[in-house]
Amino acid sequence: MISVAEAARRIAQALSPIDTETMDVAHLAGRVLAEDALALTIQPPAPVSAMDGFAVRLADAGAPRRLIGSAPAGHPFTGQLGAGEAVRIFTGGVVPEGADAIVVQEDAACDGVMVSFEASACSPHYIRAAGLDFKTGDVLVPKGKRLTGRDCALLAAGDIAQAKVRRRPRVAIISIGDELSRPGEDRKPGGIVASSGYGLSAMIHDWGGAPCDFGILQDNEADIATVADADADLIVTLGGVSVGDHDLVQKALGTKDFALEFWKVAMRPGKPVIFGKLGKTPLLGLPGNPVSTLVCAILFVKPAIAAMLGTPCEPDIMAAKLARDLPANGARQDYMRAKLSRKGGEYWAEAFAVQDSSMLTTMAQADALIVRAPDAPAAKAGERVDVIPLDGH
Amino acid sequence: MISVAEAARRIAQALSPIDTETMDVAHLAGRVLAEDALALTIQPPAPVSAMDGFAVRLADAGAPRRLIGSAPAGHPFTGQLGAGEAVRIFTGGVVPEGADAIVVQEDAACDGVMVSFEASACSPHYIRAAGLDFKTGDVLVPKGKRLTGRDCALLAAGDIAQAKVRRRPRVAIISIGDELSRPGEDRKPGGIVASSGYGLSAMIHDWGGAPCDFGILQDNEADIATVADADADLIVTLGGVSVGDHDLVQKALGTKDFALEFWKVAMRPGKPVIFGKLGKTPLLGLPGNPVSTLVCAILFVKPAIAAMLGTPCEPDIMAAKLARDLPANGARQDYMRAKLSRKGGEYWAEAFAVQDSSMLTTMAQADALIVRAPDAPAAKAGERVDVIPLDGH
Repeated sequence: MISVAEAARRIAQALSPIDTETMDVAHLAGRVLAEDALALTIQPPAPVSAMDGFAVRLADAGAPRRLIGSAPAGHPFTGQLGAGEAVRIFTGGVVPEGADAIVVQEDAACDGVMVSFEASACSPHYIRAAGLDFKTGDVLVPKGKRLTGRDCALLAAGDIAQAKVRRRPRVAIISIGDELSRPGEDRKPGGIVASSGYGLSAMIHDWGGAPCDFGILQDNEADIATVADADADLIVTLGGVSVGDHDLVQKALGTKDFALEFWKVAMRPGKPVIFGKLGKTPLLGLPGNPVSTLVCAILFVKPAIAAMLGTPCEPDIMAAKLARDLPANGARQDYMRAKLSRKGGEYWAEAFAVQDSSMLTTMAQADALIVRAPDAPAAKAGERVDVIPLDGH
Repeated sequence: MISVAEAARRIAQALSPIDTETMDVAHLAGRVLAEDALALTIQPPAPVSAMDGFAVRLADAGAPRRLIGSAPAGHPFTGQLGAGEAVRIFTGGVVPEGADAIVVQEDAACDGVMVSFEASACSPHYIRAAGLDFKTGDVLVPKGKRLTGRDCALLAAGDIAQAKVRRRPRVAIISIGDELSRPGEDRKPGGIVASSGYGLSAMIHDWGGAPCDFGILQDNEADIATVADADADLIVTLGGVSVGDHDLVQKALGTKDFALEFWKVAMRPGKPVIFGKLGKTPLLGLPGNPVSTLVCAILFVKPAIAAMLGTPCEPDIMAAKLARDLPANGARQDYMRAKLSRKGGEYWAEAFAVQDSSMLTTMAQADALIVRAPDAPAAKAGERVDVIPLDGH
């Protein structure tokens, strides 16, 4: 058995960035840049006013100025501003040649011909220099960054209409089990509804992948061997990876061109995680208990997608204090569902009393997973622990 | 001028939840439930084994058992288990009638006819009771919750194939300004590229809305009056809301059926925010400097969408320590772009040196906004401040 960190490292190492596609800036949010995005323009393009007011010369001090024109945003004043002159200007308007200061309109009196104000109201402070924000050729957003809406606004400001991004890796989700049916279908005797694929699908989309649900396969070698037909950048199977007679994934894939990289990870929930390559396609076999599936997905599918997108995936760990005592941990790294609360500047984590890996209610209600190292000693309320926040908590 | 909190409160109060639609569970992630989701089944449906092993009777203690059948998941053993008998069982398999304990397979020896183990290996602990996770009729996820992937998995487990959710509110984005062009188009003399609409569009989608970019209008009353034609649940205009001669939104809407609710909020960047109703459609006019636009969107468009979705929108505030001294604040609530770092269990916030509201580079690079109350005194490094984390930081 290998550690969680070692498993994630080996998965990321086995995968490399996939091919690219060029997208319009209107559709770039959530995508990962395949090359640095360089500004195609300078911003602001010329010195512009940061306020509504009057463009003037500092050297004229407090003398009244003669109004010679106006410079709204998008309509530059084309003449030259000389001694004793002023130009009406608006936020974003280009500062006329010859002007080197702005008087804010609240500080000025204007009768339509002359503009009067105190000398102290006349300031260069409200002129934004050309290139204050960025210059042509500046790296606006670096290669490998997953773009936020704010990044997209910046790219647009840099006149970037399109950018090259990684294709969303296609991730096949395949559920395995004779006991499974789809929601709303007739259930089998003693059967349950296939559930974790729906959660995994949403997570894969959030992580930048393109989920593709291939449905439910029966617990037999012939059925399971058909996973090799999935057209995907990554195949994720759910269930069928433990050690019982009915855990068939390894056996079934043995008949195909499957190269095992590792099997079993020292963690709870989880443990029977398989990773390898089926032909050229990476395959992750996750345990079928829904909580195990989703916890393993957070730990292994997320970094797999990040590796295919060529974007960093630091473990999303933060510190919290324990709201209640925890017993000593066993030999496997433990991930405990917990509620988070904030008191003052600190997070407090309270583990659910029952942590059975079949219980999705507590997985849905959890704000975070408390991470307990192998053989961690008992911990008291108030002690600091690592937690993985879930869905923005 | 009203406070930021008062403005957000008045916006939320003026809006109510919009109509609903019924969606398949495969497409529910990110949507807001319009009614409680009640379990349509019990989970597990019967007592099931949590391990691969043998189902037995506790009363038989350490005596060897005769193997009488098997119970894989999805294939219940249909007979009755009597004294001295065992049934081979697998994770998720239904515990046969008469059995009340499981022996894990690693603790048992089986020759195909008889099963032997120590009495101490025989435990009721590995039986999951029927309904351990939830029972038919239980509220799995309450009305008004925005569904995570984990919630979707839970709904599926509860046999919920479809659920009623709020429609994504349609949000019209309308940029105003003679100086604006689209990325990649010819720029106007002294002009700039319209940018913040691209960021706002991505944010609106993230917040659960359906953004619709109506493009760029010129700075004149006739053009701006056409915003009244937008078919939307909320209209957001960018620019044209200040006090200069070229700030025309109020004037233009005055010719339409516009009822002003408020104008101007005591904040920086921002201030000239308009809110009102254009006929029956709520309209938010945001300032045009891109950083002002996006900060105002986080503070006002996000709660507007939440109100239309019928989901709570608590201000997303967390505590951090100042990495550097800050000067005293003025009369308006200030939102300063900052980098966040984690040291030990704490977050440290470092404000960018220049906070000009036209500078999108620092807006894109920021991890958080430091919130400074009106007239807050100077603050020293190490003091605690409120921050609004951005995009999952």
